[in-house]
Amino acid sequence: MIVTLLTDFGHKDPYVGIMKGVILSGCPEVRLVDLTHQISPQDIHEGAFQLAAACAWFPEGTVHLAVVDPGVGSSRKGIAARGRRYFYVGPDNGLFSTAWDQDGPVEVRQIEHHTLAKMSRTFHGRDMFAPVAAALARGVPLEEIGGVVSDPVLLATDDQPRIVHIDNFGNLITNVRRAAEPDLESASVGWRTAPLRETFSGVGEGELVAYWGSLGLLEIAVNGGNAADQTGSERGNEVRLQRAGKAPGGTNAD
Amino acid sequence: MIVTLLTDFGHKDPYVGIMKGVILSGCPEVRLVDLTHQISPQDIHEGAFQLAAACAWFPEGTVHLAVVDPGVGSSRKGIAARGRRYFYVGPDNGLFSTAWDQDGPVEVRQIEHHTLAKMSRTFHGRDMFAPVAAALARGVPLEEIGGVVSDPVLLATDDQPRIVHIDNFGNLITNVRRAAEPDLESASVGWRTAPLRETFSGVGEGELVAYWGSLGLLEIAVNGGNAADQTGSERGNEVRLQRAGKAPGGTNAD
Amino acid sequence: MIVTLLTDFGHKDPYVGIMKGVILSGCPEVRLVDLTHQISPQDIHEGAFQLAAACAWFPEGTVHLAVVDPGVGSSRKGIAARGRRYFYVGPDNGLFSTAWDQDGPVEVRQIEHHTLAKMSRTFHGRDMFAPVAAALARGVPLEEIGGVVSDPVLLATDDQPRIVHIDNFGNLITNVRRAAEPDLESASVGWRTAPLRETFSGVGEGELVAYWGSLGLLEIAVNGGNAADQTGSERGNEVRLQRAGKAPGGTNAD
Repeated sequence: MIVTLLTDFGHKDPYVGIMKGVILSGCPEVRLVDLTHQISPQDIHEGAFQLAAACAWFPEGTVHLAVVDPGVGSSRKGIAARGRRYFYVGPDNGLFSTAWDQDGPVEVRQIEHHTLAKMSRTFHGRDMFAPVAAALARGVPLEEIGGVVSDPVLLATDDQPRIVHIDNFGNLITNVRRAAEPDLESASVGWRTAPLRETFSGVGEGELVAYWGSLGLLEIAVNGGNAADQTGSERGNEVRLQRAGKAPGGTNAD
Repeated sequence: MIVTLLTDFGHKDPYVGIMKGVILSGCPEVRLVDLTHQISPQDIHEGAFQLAAACAWFPEGTVHLAVVDPGVGSSRKGIAARGRRYFYVGPDNGLFSTAWDQDGPVEVRQIEHHTLAKMSRTFHGRDMFAPVAAALARGVPLEEIGGVVSDPVLLATDDQPRIVHIDNFGNLITNVRRAAEPDLESASVGWRTAPLRETFSGVGEGELVAYWGSLGLLEIAVNGGNAADQTGSERGNEVRLQRAGKAPGGTNAD
Repeated sequence: MIVTLLTDFGHKDPYVGIMKGVILSGCPEVRLVDLTHQISPQDIHEGAFQLAAACAWFPEGTVHLAVVDPGVGSSRKGIAARGRRYFYVGPDNGLFSTAWDQDGPVEVRQIEHHTLAKMSRTFHGRDMFAPVAAALARGVPLEEIGGVVSDPVLLATDDQPRIVHIDNFGNLITNVRRAAEPDLESASVGWRTAPLRETFSGVGEGELVAYWGSLGLLEIAVNGGNAADQTGSERGNEVRLQRAGKAPGGTNAD
């Protein structure tokens, strides 16, 4: 059984190692895989994006444990959930929204049992989520974790095309899905326009290019360069789309 | 069997990966868990703090391998040790002092056997500590590693309350233990005073707060903010304690 | 079976986690070990150096998966290879050159089979290299991966002594091999000269020293300090060698 971990804890402190110790104490046979621990501190939207990008590549039955949790110590619930393919454990704050869009319908339970006996107010990753992930990994039924949550917190969806992530190479990843834009011809950030190509080597060295990335989302890159630096783009910036047979910036009126 | 790793090697170089290759060569069944590899270079005190914070969350019998080793290549000993619950492998420079406080009494042996046949002068993590950790993980008795060390190096203890660590969220972690301060009411860093609360959401957004953290130590935070930035605090800065019925800064004269 | 991973993907994005999900889907029993994911973006030479430094410390039969791949999406081949001790999977761009020098002769195959059914143009780490590494780890013969590549891309060798890497401690690692320089007495970077000693504690605190490092290469360090900062050195800078009985900078005329 596999447990993946995604947090905003960084690599400098041993918080992630502590969670792994608790998981291994509860389920010695588990395989542990880090997704990332460098989510921007307390940025639930970034965590939701990265979790959704990664989780579907794991075998069925994998437990996805995620902690980006500005509300720890408040009254926010801890939850455990089961979708069609995966389990999810973490705070009830919308962190799993995007993953659940891909893996629904989802049954959500409030964490009431299988936590550590002594609970701190500030480190639920260790005291609540790690032991529950271990319990699910060793086969404890979801129903034993706690009562049904019928209205889990979900993030609002955003219809405005924008940059949702900038990766290690400076590529701009947008929230524009391939299936929703069959007629796309180019995309603009600021005053720069990127023609849509099959891949980033479809334009000359140093030129801006748009393409459908490996996550199924529109990405904007510079062939052999850093698009974030060259366009001065930041996460959250708007993107304008130009479609076949449409005036620039026009909406699809078909 | 689990081997944890804590070093100041960072993630850019493959030194940690090399140590894992040596451990897996000596004990193919071992489970490897990283605690942290971002201890400030050659900072034994920080390494000792982080190791002690993390190690007790692992199953009994875990081997804790730690390398923060400014004296490599000099005459400092390499040691392997066994406490009540865990094994320890690394340099004899005080790195294990705080962990041993929690896990004593400890038997310490000098590493004389089970190293690689060919030893470099500069990478004992690979040539000495990794193969000995693998030996202990596969069940070699501690007595076979080498002769008894009756006076291992220990760090001096510090009775002055101070900041011993600043975490990824800017929280200030002190060396003040809960059991030692039953009457604490507030704590000050610089000219700022933080009231003691159950958790950091016990004060308003943006306000300074003190609480007993998940490590059993006093922590000072800003609810929804970064206490290190807002107070200009650095590791090593002094903390002043105010206790119930005492004048500010007064010592306990009971 | 062990699969190691070396990339320039960094730790912020979940790309490495995604590759691990694909590998575990194809070979649930595999042991995964990170070498480094902080190769400078698209720097094939640095990747080749780090892979060669690390790979030989793993048990025979280990699969070394490496992705530093500026040519992804172009016509460069994907390859799988087998040396005397290890398997290699990644792009055909010279990334394995230095490792193969240590592990030859090597048989190289072009990746034509055992990839994911649906291939993206931009993430061959996930779609091509991860599933092929999993296939080799579960025992699929190299011959099944694809046809023979008789002329894999190799990096040009560099006879000029220079700094090929600066590690986390600021030590300068050169491309000068111990076996090639039996008469070395000292080495210079810029206007500073470092005498050759057994180890870096062979000079006084704060002094520059040269020694044969743990990789079998000449390294230049400052005892208790940071050589890169103190000498203003950068990767690629030239190093001058002084040999016994020779004028400084003289070549070996024996």
